[in-house]
Amino acid sequence: MEISSPSNPRIKELVTLRRRRSRHGSGVTLVEGYEELDLALRAGVRPRDLYFCPALTGGKDPRNVLARSAELGTALFSLSQQAFDKAAYREGPDGWLAVVPSIETELSHIDVGPQALILVCEGVEKPGNLGSMLRTADAAGVTAVVSADAVTDWGNPNVIRASKGTVFSVPVASAASDEVMDWLAKNSVRVVAATPDTDVLMTEFDMTGPTAIAVGSEKYGLSDAWMTGAHSRAKIPMFGQVDSLNVAVSAALFTYEAVRQRMAAGQP
Amino acid sequence: MEISSPSNPRIKELVTLRRRRSRHGSGVTLVEGYEELDLALRAGVRPRDLYFCPALTGGKDPRNVLARSAELGTALFSLSQQAFDKAAYREGPDGWLAVVPSIETELSHIDVGPQALILVCEGVEKPGNLGSMLRTADAAGVTAVVSADAVTDWGNPNVIRASKGTVFSVPVASAASDEVMDWLAKNSVRVVAATPDTDVLMTEFDMTGPTAIAVGSEKYGLSDAWMTGAHSRAKIPMFGQVDSLNVAVSAALFTYEAVRQRMAAGQP
Repeated sequence: MEISSPSNPRIKELVTLRRRRSRHGSGVTLVEGYEELDLALRAGVRPRDLYFCPALTGGKDPRNVLARSAELGTALFSLSQQAFDKAAYREGPDGWLAVVPSIETELSHIDVGPQALILVCEGVEKPGNLGSMLRTADAAGVTAVVSADAVTDWGNPNVIRASKGTVFSVPVASAASDEVMDWLAKNSVRVVAATPDTDVLMTEFDMTGPTAIAVGSEKYGLSDAWMTGAHSRAKIPMFGQVDSLNVAVSAALFTYEAVRQRMAAGQP
Repeated sequence: MEISSPSNPRIKELVTLRRRRSRHGSGVTLVEGYEELDLALRAGVRPRDLYFCPALTGGKDPRNVLARSAELGTALFSLSQQAFDKAAYREGPDGWLAVVPSIETELSHIDVGPQALILVCEGVEKPGNLGSMLRTADAAGVTAVVSADAVTDWGNPNVIRASKGTVFSVPVASAASDEVMDWLAKNSVRVVAATPDTDVLMTEFDMTGPTAIAVGSEKYGLSDAWMTGAHSRAKIPMFGQVDSLNVAVSAALFTYEAVRQRMAAGQP
C-alpha cells in the first residue's frame, strides 16, 4: 500500500505513538531506523506495520528487512517523503519505521536460573542512560533489566534508539519497587545496592551466585527502600573531586565486575 | 556592574563564545551553572568574568562563588533576566555563567610518573561521551585525558556541562595522533587499544605500569594508526547481539580494570 498524504490516519497514529500514554493504551510502540529494525527482527520481534520511504532508502535493503517482515505477516506501507517526514521522530530519518508489539515482559516470565544476573534501575530518567544500560546488558549477557518505579518506559523511542536495538535482545520489565523486591526474594536473588555510601568495594561483594545490581536515578540515587532492602551496599572506588559517576557507567562497572568474577570462577 | 540590555556587547561576546573558532581565537571559554563554577573554582580556575542573574539565583550563593571569584580578581556583572536568557546556552538556566581561561594544557606539561594512567580518545564526537569520560577519569584518578585528532574541543560548553565540572579537575590536552604517540613513547607509556578486534581480554593486559588506554570514535572506532601503533589490543568480553558498547562505557571499563589491577597489586 502507498501513502502520500501526511494527513492519512495511519500517519496520525504514528505521531500519537510518540506519547507514553498512547503506547501504554495500545500495546504497541515505534521502532525507527534500519539498524534497529534489523536487530528487532533478529530478536524475534514481529512488526505489526512497516513503513518505508523509497525517497529516503534509495530502494536499498541489504538485509532484506522488507522480505523478512512480509514473511512474518507485517503490513507494508510505502510512504511519500512528505508523509514520512511527518511520521518520523528522528532528525535525519533513514526511511524506516515500524509499529511493533510492546517490548516489556512480565517479571514472572523471566527465567531466573542459578547464574542469573539482573540489572535493576530505579527511577532512571534519561533515555540515553537507559539505552546505554541495555547495550551493556546485552554485551554482558545479563538475564534481564528491570525498571523499578519507572520514570521513562522501555517503549520510549529514544530508549529504543539509544539501545541500538538491544531493547529487543535483552528481556526488559517494569514494576513497582516492592514488587521487584518480592520477586527477587522469591527467586533467592541477592541484591547489591550501588552507592558511594558504604565502605564495601564492588570487588568485595560476591556476585557469582544469582545477583541483582540496583542503581538509582540520575538525581537522587537509590531510594531508602533499596538501600535498606539490599543484602549489601557496595561502591566503586573513587579518588577524585566528584562523588558520583554517570549511572550508565556505574551500572556497567558493576555488571562487568560480576562478569569478571564469574569468568575467574570458571563459570560459562 | 549591572547589565540590563540583551544587546550589550558583553552579552554578544557570550553568545559568540559558543562557537569553537571564537573560543580558540580568544583563549577563553564559557562555564554555566553553579555546580560547575564551584568545581572550577575548587580546581584553581580564575574566571575572567562572572555573570549572575539575581532574578534566577534568588540571591542564593551558599558556596560563596561571588566572594571567591571577586578575591581572584574576577569582574562581576549582575544581569537582568532578559539579558541572562540571551547569554545562557542551557535550557532552564540557574543564573550563573562565567568566562574562564582555556582549559587545555600542553602534552609537555603533563606529569607522567611511574603510575601514570592516560586516557586517549581519538575523534570522539559527542559532548556527552567526552563529559562522561571526564567524570570517570576524575573518579578513577586518571593522570590526564588526551584528545587525539579532536572533533569536539574540551572547551565545548556541552562537554563542560556533561563533565559536571571535572574538565577542570582532570588535566586535558589535545594533539594530532602522531604527536600523542610520540609523547607516549618518549615517556615509556605502554598503549593498549580498546577494540573488539582481538583475542586478548582487558583483564589479561598488565596495566600496573605507566599505561595509556586508547578508545576510538563512536562511528569508526580506532584508526589503523592506533590499532597498529599500540603495544597490544585488548577487548571487553561480550556475549550478546551487538559488538560494541558506548565509548564512554568502554573507556570506563578499561580505566577501572587498571584501577582494580593497581589496587590488587597494593599500589597507592
